Amino acid sequence: MESHVDVLIVGAGPAGVMCANALAAAGVHVKIVDQRPLKVSTGQADGIQPRTIEVLQSYGLAERLLKEGCQMHMCAFYNPDDGGVLARTGRAPDITAPTARYPFEVLLNQGAVEQIFVDSMASHGLTVDRPIVPASIELSDDSEQLEDPFSYPVKVTLDHLDTPGKQEIVHARYVVGCDGAHSWVRKTLNITMDGEQTDYIWGVVDIVADTDFPDVRNRSAIHSTNGSCMIIPREGDKVRFYIQLSDSDVLDPVSGRVDKNRMSPEKLLDVARKILHPYKVDEPKKYDWWTIYIIGQRVASRFSVNERIFIAGDACHTHSPKAGQGMNASMNDTHNLAWKLAQVLRGRADISLLKTYELERRKYAQDLIDFDREFSTLFSGKPRTVDNDDGVSHEQFLRAFQAGGGFTSGIGVHYMPSAITNATHQQCAPHLIIGERMPPQVFVRAADARPYDIQDMIPSDTRFKLLFFVGHLTEDRVRELKFLSEGLSDPSSFLQKYGYPSQGVAQSMFDIITIMSGDKGEIEYTRVPALLRPHWSKVLLDDTDVSGKLGGGAYKRFGIDPRGITLVVIRPDGYVGMIAPASALDDVDNYFAAFTIPQEGAVEEA
Amino acid sequence: MESHVDVLIVGAGPAGVMCANALAAAGVHVKIVDQRPLKVSTGQADGIQPRTIEVLQSYGLAERLLKEGCQMHMCAFYNPDDGGVLARTGRAPDITAPTARYPFEVLLNQGAVEQIFVDSMASHGLTVDRPIVPASIELSDDSEQLEDPFSYPVKVTLDHLDTPGKQEIVHARYVVGCDGAHSWVRKTLNITMDGEQTDYIWGVVDIVADTDFPDVRNRSAIHSTNGSCMIIPREGDKVRFYIQLSDSDVLDPVSGRVDKNRMSPEKLLDVARKILHPYKVDEPKKYDWWTIYIIGQRVASRFSVNERIFIAGDACHTHSPKAGQGMNASMNDTHNLAWKLAQVLRGRADISLLKTYELERRKYAQDLIDFDREFSTLFSGKPRTVDNDDGVSHEQFLRAFQAGGGFTSGIGVHYMPSAITNATHQQCAPHLIIGERMPPQVFVRAADARPYDIQDMIPSDTRFKLLFFVGHLTEDRVRELKFLSEGLSDPSSFLQKYGYPSQGVAQSMFDIITIMSGDKGEIEYTRVPALLRPHWSKVLLDDTDVSGKLGGGAYKRFGIDPRGITLVVIRPDGYVGMIAPASALDDVDNYFAAFTIPQEGAVEEA
Repeated sequence: MESHVDVLIVGAGPAGVMCANALAAAGVHVKIVDQRPLKVSTGQADGIQPRTIEVLQSYGLAERLLKEGCQMHMCAFYNPDDGGVLARTGRAPDITAPTARYPFEVLLNQGAVEQIFVDSMASHGLTVDRPIVPASIELSDDSEQLEDPFSYPVKVTLDHLDTPGKQEIVHARYVVGCDGAHSWVRKTLNITMDGEQTDYIWGVVDIVADTDFPDVRNRSAIHSTNGSCMIIPREGDKVRFYIQLSDSDVLDPVSGRVDKNRMSPEKLLDVARKILHPYKVDEPKKYDWWTIYIIGQRVASRFSVNERIFIAGDACHTHSPKAGQGMNASMNDTHNLAWKLAQVLRGRADISLLKTYELERRKYAQDLIDFDREFSTLFSGKPRTVDNDDGVSHEQFLRAFQAGGGFTSGIGVHYMPSAITNATHQQCAPHLIIGERMPPQVFVRAADARPYDIQDMIPSDTRFKLLFFVGHLTEDRVRELKFLSEGLSDPSSFLQKYGYPSQGVAQSMFDIITIMSGDKGEIEYTRVPALLRPHWSKVLLDDTDVSGKLGGGAYKRFGIDPRGITLVVIRPDGYVGMIAPASALDDVDNYFAAFTIPQEGAVEEA
Repeated sequence: MESHVDVLIVGAGPAGVMCANALAAAGVHVKIVDQRPLKVSTGQADGIQPRTIEVLQSYGLAERLLKEGCQMHMCAFYNPDDGGVLARTGRAPDITAPTARYPFEVLLNQGAVEQIFVDSMASHGLTVDRPIVPASIELSDDSEQLEDPFSYPVKVTLDHLDTPGKQEIVHARYVVGCDGAHSWVRKTLNITMDGEQTDYIWGVVDIVADTDFPDVRNRSAIHSTNGSCMIIPREGDKVRFYIQLSDSDVLDPVSGRVDKNRMSPEKLLDVARKILHPYKVDEPKKYDWWTIYIIGQRVASRFSVNERIFIAGDACHTHSPKAGQGMNASMNDTHNLAWKLAQVLRGRADISLLKTYELERRKYAQDLIDFDREFSTLFSGKPRTVDNDDGVSHEQFLRAFQAGGGFTSGIGVHYMPSAITNATHQQCAPHLIIGERMPPQVFVRAADARPYDIQDMIPSDTRFKLLFFVGHLTEDRVRELKFLSEGLSDPSSFLQKYGYPSQGVAQSMFDIITIMSGDKGEIEYTRVPALLRPHWSKVLLDDTDVSGKLGGGAYKRFGIDPRGITLVVIRPDGYVGMIAPASALDDVDNYFAAFTIPQEGAVEEA
């Protein structure tokens, strides 16, 4: 058995299925394999952060996540009171990122999250091949082959675990290793992990808790004199306990290594009970899932080899589950990578575009483990009490919790300047930050006054979205727009050179959205020139909806002057890539010229 | 072929499928038949009003409606300007009901709306039998049989249209005739229609319009010197034109009767073009659906015979499509009827409860045709111009349009006092109107601060919802609640007598929701006594969510004093049935005693 594929993905965890679904939706020929005979059905990671919900929404998958998952809006903090008895010190919003579209975390077990992607992939004709593991991987060292984005320089041999001796060979243009913390791909490529292990040992157990603890449906961070514990509510009536363990609980006295056999879910819950005293937790009818782990914070030294083999997710960063980043970091890795692979494979983008994956995601991973190290230490520390002046105070913990809110929510992720992130004209929209994700903002559609979130108009469909903020449609402005349209229709304009609109929509590089200012009672969308109005639904208005409750104020919020014309370029992954005034379209041309391949056909046809 | 069913429904239009789905979900044994071999696939009624969207949401069906339908938020008005040329006089919100949860209309063709119910019915094991028409119907005149809610006093013979001569006999406990304006059931029972025909003739045509008319995606009411026209946007890029016709367009000069053969969609659009001049409408690629009709406003003299055979929907009221009530009035008829039939068939409610159907819905139908008569006249009238002082002015039309907003949206529907609507203690919540639907109001759940609309906690599941507004949980209040709980646990209390909580949930008469006031950072839901807290999710708090954007202010809005305990009884169809202070629970007992049957088993078990 021998086959050729555009992209081979090893591992169908969160990073793998995100990658596979995005590529399959983009029409890329993908093969995805996993060693497990069935997908994971319980336990493991379970928290989806606000930015990740936005990302799922951009693939049309958030609705199901929200339907199946449990929401966590509030966080409660428990510490010993002056008498040493555990008591609630306070509550705070679980999410402290003010622009989050979904200001909460969603808890849903990893298997259910994966299934959302697996079902979506199936609608694009792709299924996971399992149980399969890679046996060998070879990357060509022929530089000509490596430079040709359409060559097949990677040869992977796969073992079919259900049929001893059965092997197949896959020739792949690109390979993505999403094979977890013990990544075979990473190890085989000799990519090292930088970082270290801590001494903190934790246990996790999922149960349906019958308890008088009044914050069992909130995230609860508990620092008691008997240790630390975190409670996370889950689907249905389930609850997860993260429980700090002492060495004597879990270490083998002879080898000094962690021995899971020394623990059991019953024992874990007993430790939790001591920490939660005087609150009670009844013996549950059954234990759902449990494990123990040692916190380690590590980042892979590189994320790709020659931009032909990539690693993503746990394969390139490991950290504690405390900050709730598990699935999120992984899925956002391949969300970042997928559109780049798709555009390179279509011949629309230069292969160098793929370098921005490591550039952007390794920096993020480094920030993640730095944050996690600080937060985990605070969490595992003893509480400050009358007898322990050096302990962690509630104020200290809360400060760290809230300071990290932008980071843990994913909302604050900021990609540095690069080929695809150009901050030259940031002053044209000082509050719409280049390198950060386009925040949610409700506009009304000019044609029918229906409120629409801009995030729902910039789906992850591999296209760059060109948002033309055109202000009030005065007579002068309409003239300027006609002039702009003519410029953009010229074969020399980036819009024509790089493929719009002579190509089919699905394969197109750009989508155009025009955003007017004015009064919904008076404006007429029919005055926008045809090129800036590919469909009536693509003209928006910065005004409130008819109820007055939604929308409005976007020009002011972003700092965009409605007396000029401002172009905002949104990257296919939803991040602001560039901003420019109409007078600086040459800069936009240069931006795209740096990584985009001119389409000969498009120029001729235009 | 001979069978016995609880309820036989004749006709699978909007009234029929709403009825069938609600009854099937309630576990009632239903048979539904329709004369059409296939469901309607295009044209006909298409507007869903705000209250109807709320009702669909209460059955879990609004999501699909919103996904498939087009939304109409804005209305535009066109009249001749001073020079007699058609111009926009203004725009206004399409919906003027401030408490609407969905402040817009949804446009979706009748076939697609029916399909939503048909698919939901299928999940309860029910399909429409077709093509079948009733051939005869006999109602027993045995008074003993008629008084026994479980007897089968109706015998219906059905003809299978696809097999000539094939008949079946159905013995039904109840029959609902949802067989349209020319209802066979109504005619066979000799129920007369009261009202009259007008002289206004209108045409309807659906197309994808290529036009420079700037309000083609809004509802547009056009009064031109060449006649009147209404534009309604539809799914995708489709648009519906309602076009006023003159006698010469459509009347047969010999017979004086409307002759559809004298019209065609092309001719209809030509009339529209004259009305819309100087705006242009290009010749469409195809015509989707068209018809012509004469406006008539009529109401059936009665809606039931002996509370064993009912008629609903167009079978009992006909009116113009102008006010967009077509499907809405019909679906709300059987939404009103279904829970009553279900509770009678379960032996939980007295058969006399069924009398409230005609009481409530005939009054509504009368109001509807009164409104429609006035509105249609204004719409069909000539515009006021320099040459026509007697014409309809924009102000006059807008006033009627907005004054009717509460009515047309369905939000303002107000059921008069009856066995199930008791306004005695209205002063306990002066702004929560008894007889009107429970308005949307966001609370947060006390246990997890998740915002929830109260409408989503009172689904149409045939149960009465008991909303206990308990105010701040002071020590005194907790004592009062314990006392209240004890009272409600007593076998003599309505809660025990009429079936809670000893019966299974699905068959239960009541659901309990407790609504506290206080600060989400401090309250503890665990302090609410168990009887008032059947599950942690059933305790709500009148506070904003963590973002501060949703919820809060409900006590003030409804005028409920948080220093007392107030019980609000919501009927199974979402209408406020009764309100009472904790000191007047005897009145609540009397309310239920009037139509509810004590459950012997429940009393003994309690």
